[in-house]
Amino acid sequence: MKLYGFFRSSAAFRVRIALNLKKLDYDAAFIHLRRGEQSGPEFRGVNPQGLVPALEIDGERLIQSLPIIEYLDERHPEPPLLPPDAAGRARVRALAAIVACDIHPLNNLRVLRYLHRELGHDEAALGRWYNHWIAEGFAAFEALVAADKRTGAFCHGDEPGLADIALAPQIVNAERYALDLAPYPTITRIFKTCMQLDAFAAAHPERQPDREA
Amino acid sequence: MKLYGFFRSSAAFRVRIALNLKKLDYDAAFIHLRRGEQSGPEFRGVNPQGLVPALEIDGERLIQSLPIIEYLDERHPEPPLLPPDAAGRARVRALAAIVACDIHPLNNLRVLRYLHRELGHDEAALGRWYNHWIAEGFAAFEALVAADKRTGAFCHGDEPGLADIALAPQIVNAERYALDLAPYPTITRIFKTCMQLDAFAAAHPERQPDREA
Repeated sequence: MKLYGFFRSSAAFRVRIALNLKKLDYDAAFIHLRRGEQSGPEFRGVNPQGLVPALEIDGERLIQSLPIIEYLDERHPEPPLLPPDAAGRARVRALAAIVACDIHPLNNLRVLRYLHRELGHDEAALGRWYNHWIAEGFAAFEALVAADKRTGAFCHGDEPGLADIALAPQIVNAERYALDLAPYPTITRIFKTCMQLDAFAAAHPERQPDREA
Repeated sequence: MKLYGFFRSSAAFRVRIALNLKKLDYDAAFIHLRRGEQSGPEFRGVNPQGLVPALEIDGERLIQSLPIIEYLDERHPEPPLLPPDAAGRARVRALAAIVACDIHPLNNLRVLRYLHRELGHDEAALGRWYNHWIAEGFAAFEALVAADKRTGAFCHGDEPGLADIALAPQIVNAERYALDLAPYPTITRIFKTCMQLDAFAAAHPERQPDREA
């Protein structure tokens, strides 16, 4: 099994957490995003989208973090990353999608580069953009988990799952850009609980072999 | 069953197609996005994210189009919208995610408004932005379906599924902004096949009761 990733990629971070929770060993291939390795012909042969993560497993080459994690959950059911009931699964997938569809893609490196290179915005404008979309998404995420009795120690009950896997890397990103997390007490509480688990802590960007200052 | 949507929302369009494929009747609530109804307190009570679609079903209130469609597929398995094998499901979910994570959220109304109101960009710059992200995503989508024997009349085999449901509304958007579709012969061929089906055609924005010129 081979995971193509980058220490700073929060989508790769999600897959690292899932692999750790499932106790699956993997080889790591490091695709240096700032040097543009994801756009070269070699990696485009792995993933035509030129994005990490990609996972080679069972003779398949999978892309897109949430579909990869659903695959891992189907093939390696323990511990489950989705609830047993359809309504619970819809809730957890929706929470994950708030991050994976409506926060993270807006703040991806390729988008920040377009804002800078094509549209001429400076670091300050990029920082406001970055935190604006996190704040929008976190406000909804917080409202949904704070108001729902299905929330427990984690986003859904007392075991970590797909929603926590999406949330934790996004909070790490928010911390990097110094977003004020005070308006989001429930999700920061859940984040702290997540990061006490080895599966989450060992997946942190700062603990990856390709990390940089 | 009640679907909160807007004729022009391509995420709502996806759910309309899935409901039609499953032959499920629903009441429609129209949330006028350009008038800002999605941001008012009434709709925020339905979906704290302030985005359509939302679906009330089985006493639950679901948000996020792909999780809604997965719920419909689990509760109403015929016709299936995902393949029977884990690798096929991962492929179809990844194709859907290319649209739902990496194209559509970048071109959503709230993002175009931020680019215009906060960053001062004009219609021409917005149009370039819009088509840039579609072209990036379509190039990958095209490469993935053109090179894969699992592609059939539709994205995966000869029956429509989740990847087609994500693709078709995005092509309708691309046509609106006059993106040149010539570089994407496979996905435009699949799109034409989709739109010959009543389930897709009846879900088109121009056929919704709340459509506007």
